[in-house]
Amino acid sequence: MSSEFEPRDKQFARRVRASFAAQPYVNFLGAELATVGPGYCEIRLRQRQALRQQHGYIHGGAIASILDSAAGYAAMTLVPPRTGVLTVEYKLNFVRPARGAAIVARGRVVKPGRTLTVVQADAFLSGESKEELCATSIQTLIAIPGLSERAPARRPRNSTRR
Amino acid sequence: MSSEFEPRDKQFARRVRASFAAQPYVNFLGAELATVGPGYCEIRLRQRQALRQQHGYIHGGAIASILDSAAGYAAMTLVPPRTGVLTVEYKLNFVRPARGAAIVARGRVVKPGRTLTVVQADAFLSGESKEELCATSIQTLIAIPGLSERAPARRPRNSTRR
Amino acid sequence: MSSEFEPRDKQFARRVRASFAAQPYVNFLGAELATVGPGYCEIRLRQRQALRQQHGYIHGGAIASILDSAAGYAAMTLVPPRTGVLTVEYKLNFVRPARGAAIVARGRVVKPGRTLTVVQADAFLSGESKEELCATSIQTLIAIPGLSERAPARRPRNSTRR
Amino acid sequence: MSSEFEPRDKQFARRVRASFAAQPYVNFLGAELATVGPGYCEIRLRQRQALRQQHGYIHGGAIASILDSAAGYAAMTLVPPRTGVLTVEYKLNFVRPARGAAIVARGRVVKPGRTLTVVQADAFLSGESKEELCATSIQTLIAIPGLSERAPARRPRNSTRR
Repeated sequence: MSSEFEPRDKQFARRVRASFAAQPYVNFLGAELATVGPGYCEIRLRQRQALRQQHGYIHGGAIASILDSAAGYAAMTLVPPRTGVLTVEYKLNFVRPARGAAIVARGRVVKPGRTLTVVQADAFLSGESKEELCATSIQTLIAIPGLSERAPARRPRNSTRR
Repeated sequence: MSSEFEPRDKQFARRVRASFAAQPYVNFLGAELATVGPGYCEIRLRQRQALRQQHGYIHGGAIASILDSAAGYAAMTLVPPRTGVLTVEYKLNFVRPARGAAIVARGRVVKPGRTLTVVQADAFLSGESKEELCATSIQTLIAIPGLSERAPARRPRNSTRR
Repeated sequence: MSSEFEPRDKQFARRVRASFAAQPYVNFLGAELATVGPGYCEIRLRQRQALRQQHGYIHGGAIASILDSAAGYAAMTLVPPRTGVLTVEYKLNFVRPARGAAIVARGRVVKPGRTLTVVQADAFLSGESKEELCATSIQTLIAIPGLSERAPARRPRNSTRR
Repeated sequence: MSSEFEPRDKQFARRVRASFAAQPYVNFLGAELATVGPGYCEIRLRQRQALRQQHGYIHGGAIASILDSAAGYAAMTLVPPRTGVLTVEYKLNFVRPARGAAIVARGRVVKPGRTLTVVQADAFLSGESKEELCATSIQTLIAIPGLSERAPARRPRNSTRR
């Protein structure tokens, strides 16, 4: 993937994948980390019954969850080694009901920074002939030097998912 | 609960509770509908392993999910009978890591309207001596006359799970 | 300008230009309507002393003002005749201090709709070799059938100032 | 004004007032700094022709401008001496057309922080029997140690307003 961004940690993709794998919540939802590139991250979520709201669409909370993750990991690709990333805030608009076989969330860094990174993350309805925009967001992330992506020790090892 | 708002559907609380019960996703997360009043809704989510992100806190996506639901149901308390509510957009700020035994999301209508309703929804860390703000949001909802809160027929009956 | 959008009012550009000319505020700021196309609007604002904040940059409020206008007029290009447009809400991120000779705000419709339209509006620093992003926003607009773009009669004719 | 916040700079109010006075833009708009307290700032803007949009209301950009200022100065009351504050981002909802004699914007710190401060800023229609909410916002500000509130030297002295 070509990019205007130069990662400061050559192991960025490995670090993102390790962090994603260590997140109970995204695994609980069933999200999959698809593509990771400099300033870019793509996450997929397959439609299934447990993710639906009362009208039969994927719940906005599940869409927000993968948009949040896609933005966070897009930002993480550009921070130095041994630096974590936390979500400061975001805003999203739902523009189409989330029908279809899957949702793809794509985060792209709009403006990297030493402290704050701004990311645009969009969600698309996938699995059909043509992708359609389902939600769009702008997110602000903060880099935290020394914040480990390792789960703290007190977290029980064998209870990761269901 | 006293309120400045006069619901147009006297069955509003029953309708909100029925809709919440019909949502596979909020049940999948383990969210509980606590209080429903005119222009107000409170939802609780207990901390557990499946909801955590890689640092051991409750994932922002889970918090966003219950803020979204609390705002949506706060708005729904004020719409006429046989009118559904969809989330147009929201913005949220995470202001504290979500440690603690539970999260409580409280949605309060700021401005009701025939078409659009604006809601402030805040999330608090609970289960300790003092509640602390963990996330704050402003949300915009749209009323859709005729939108049924019934799940569509194609949704299998017996797969709501948990 | 090629576009994926088909305006429902062939006079859309004339209508946008007439509305812009009738806005005391944008003229007071010194904003200029540059380009109008289907689902698109570009507004320019030249740097000058009156627009500065205390650090010498163009004040964020002036940038927000032209982003708001660019988004509103982008939305207006796609509504039917005799329909006005009001801003429901927006979110913006400032990503660079607004130095430079001018700011260009560009609004692009992301999702048109009968009632709500979602627009992305970005502001760029202009007048230098390369444009740089200075602020990015997502905006929600509502179409109001019958809302006239004419100023109400009580507004005095000759007081537009500057 | 009682407050839960303890300012780190006892001269906070003087510093805020000096900064406000040094802002060409807010003076150009005609905004007035009303009240300053720990974590709090109130700014007033009188209705006048130059601030109107095409329907005769105060333009949303003018409202955004004073909300931005009220939030920024509310945050500035809590930062240490010789520390400036910049707006990172905000989201606002317009909930009522801005008719009436004046707008009052009130910024209240929701969560102070060493780097980031979150502020809620609301705008009210004033000058009538009862104040009414006209816009609500959540804003994120960043503290910049060493950022001077003095205007840079190149700014001409005698051109501050019109």
